Amino acid sequence: MKIALDAMGGDHAPENIIHGAVLALREYPHISHLFLTGDTPRVEAELKKHGCNDSRIEIIHTTQIVEMADSGLDAVRRKKDSSVSRAIDLVKEGRAQAAVSAGHTGAAVTASLIKLRTLPGVERPAIASIMPSLGKYWVLIDAGANPDAEPAHLVQNAIMGAAYAECVLGRKNPEVGLMSNGTEDEKGNALTKETRPLLAASGLNFRGNVEGHDLFHNPPDVVVCDGFTGNVLLKTCESLAHAMFAMIKRELMAGLRTKIGATLAKPAFKRVHKATNADEYGGMPLLGVNGVTIISHGGASAYAMKNALRMACETIQHSVNPHIIDAVKRHHDSAN
Amino acid sequence: MKIALDAMGGDHAPENIIHGAVLALREYPHISHLFLTGDTPRVEAELKKHGCNDSRIEIIHTTQIVEMADSGLDAVRRKKDSSVSRAIDLVKEGRAQAAVSAGHTGAAVTASLIKLRTLPGVERPAIASIMPSLGKYWVLIDAGANPDAEPAHLVQNAIMGAAYAECVLGRKNPEVGLMSNGTEDEKGNALTKETRPLLAASGLNFRGNVEGHDLFHNPPDVVVCDGFTGNVLLKTCESLAHAMFAMIKRELMAGLRTKIGATLAKPAFKRVHKATNADEYGGMPLLGVNGVTIISHGGASAYAMKNALRMACETIQHSVNPHIIDAVKRHHDSAN
Repeated sequence: MKIALDAMGGDHAPENIIHGAVLALREYPHISHLFLTGDTPRVEAELKKHGCNDSRIEIIHTTQIVEMADSGLDAVRRKKDSSVSRAIDLVKEGRAQAAVSAGHTGAAVTASLIKLRTLPGVERPAIASIMPSLGKYWVLIDAGANPDAEPAHLVQNAIMGAAYAECVLGRKNPEVGLMSNGTEDEKGNALTKETRPLLAASGLNFRGNVEGHDLFHNPPDVVVCDGFTGNVLLKTCESLAHAMFAMIKRELMAGLRTKIGATLAKPAFKRVHKATNADEYGGMPLLGVNGVTIISHGGASAYAMKNALRMACETIQHSVNPHIIDAVKRHHDSAN
Repeated sequence: MKIALDAMGGDHAPENIIHGAVLALREYPHISHLFLTGDTPRVEAELKKHGCNDSRIEIIHTTQIVEMADSGLDAVRRKKDSSVSRAIDLVKEGRAQAAVSAGHTGAAVTASLIKLRTLPGVERPAIASIMPSLGKYWVLIDAGANPDAEPAHLVQNAIMGAAYAECVLGRKNPEVGLMSNGTEDEKGNALTKETRPLLAASGLNFRGNVEGHDLFHNPPDVVVCDGFTGNVLLKTCESLAHAMFAMIKRELMAGLRTKIGATLAKPAFKRVHKATNADEYGGMPLLGVNGVTIISHGGASAYAMKNALRMACETIQHSVNPHIIDAVKRHHDSAN
């Protein structure tokens, strides 16, 4: 598989990005070609640090930097030679099958939307994030692509999220829930109140409204929301999980007895950390565009970047886009 | 202090409610009178269970039940003799200084809005929730009263939240943040993009946008959002914290070594649980109404209800409403 990696995007770029690329190349032989878009001397310096001269690497030199203060649209229009734009160009040109970026999310979404265009029948792309719970994993969609979504967008998120849960998580007839401020039908804001009957009539396996209390104890396979709510929710969960580990560590280190307890309990903590650590997935696919774009966290570690590259391979392997095209078409046909 | 408690509201009513009342009466001598609104025989039976014949209790018999499927407005209009309506009537009539309910949030909010009316200059009430972090506590406002808020409502939430942080948490010139999907000024949805400049010009100590990653590591004193986002956020945090403890427990119990570790580490877990347990506050004030209404969780435990009654006392003691009236007036004067 041929992948384009935005080497300059993210808070710790190019260091963590290149480190992650080196780890991925070692671990995933099915990456046949890896484009690194970015400043050639800096990228080369990082590769040298890791003693990496893998023949699958091709550096594509870029000259512009997307700043966090740029709007997504400005970034794409004015900075055609940025590392994120060039990575997505490679997908558009068919030279790469997927682009991965830990940089400016708005720029990656807008560049994908403009350059790759949406799949037939999809109005707006949405970011899908795989989330843990006490039981199964579930899909949160949209985790941040479309903050001012309309009801029709949420229905498409539901269709895309269900197709994704089917082909990546192996769920049959995935159950879909609508994120709301209560489970009762009457609960919601204007957006969800308008969306709920559309989902109920969609032919999807629709549970109805779900609330925060359901997410980690009894989640449906897919939780649908607008990109503002989803982004707040995703980042809040990451922050709280991290803070709880930090609090527990602080309290464990506060006395000898609990310190000894902590040493003995370490394997259990490691397992919980692994199950709840966003870095294990490392990236989230932008669903609904005609190509594969994987969005990573700005603060992504090398380990997260390695996993984001794995996620890119899996999204290609599982033929996610053909599944989505099919699901959208089925829904469209049954509605007419 | 005279308090009216909705004895029938909540998933475990009247059992947990009455049990909480009994605990509170034992612990808080400054409760001089406690009205219990509900079905007299059932309330009396619960009191008898706890051997409680405290002379400060007065039962107000009610005959109607608000169902979770009722809309807030319907509940108030059609069920005038419900336990939540009657509790708020007692505040309106000046017989109680505060009402506490773990029942239908929409009904408690609507009854408070219609019967007590808003404070001068306040358009919509908002629920304030005290939240933990690695460092200080902070105030989330609105946690669920007004799901379709407008920019002017968010500005009032900020003013009320800051007044609350000042008089209850003792913060001087509290810092306010606007909940968004990124910290940059450009981030947000239509609502927050319109609200941000209003907050920047409000004279409040405004940090700008905050995102989920800030909430537990570096929160401002007050985080402002609409009631939909706030409710999703609050319930998600409660669910995740609960699930993480459950996951850790499950993993600790999976082997002998970690079981022993868990026993030794127990005091540390207890401290973290106490710091992150929503039951420690038990209730959230509905700010902006001319009276004190404390909203508790539907699933509130007896311990949570006891603490909700403590919260009612504190809200009266700290003269929260005079502070809010003053803050709204100052803001209004400086804007003109």
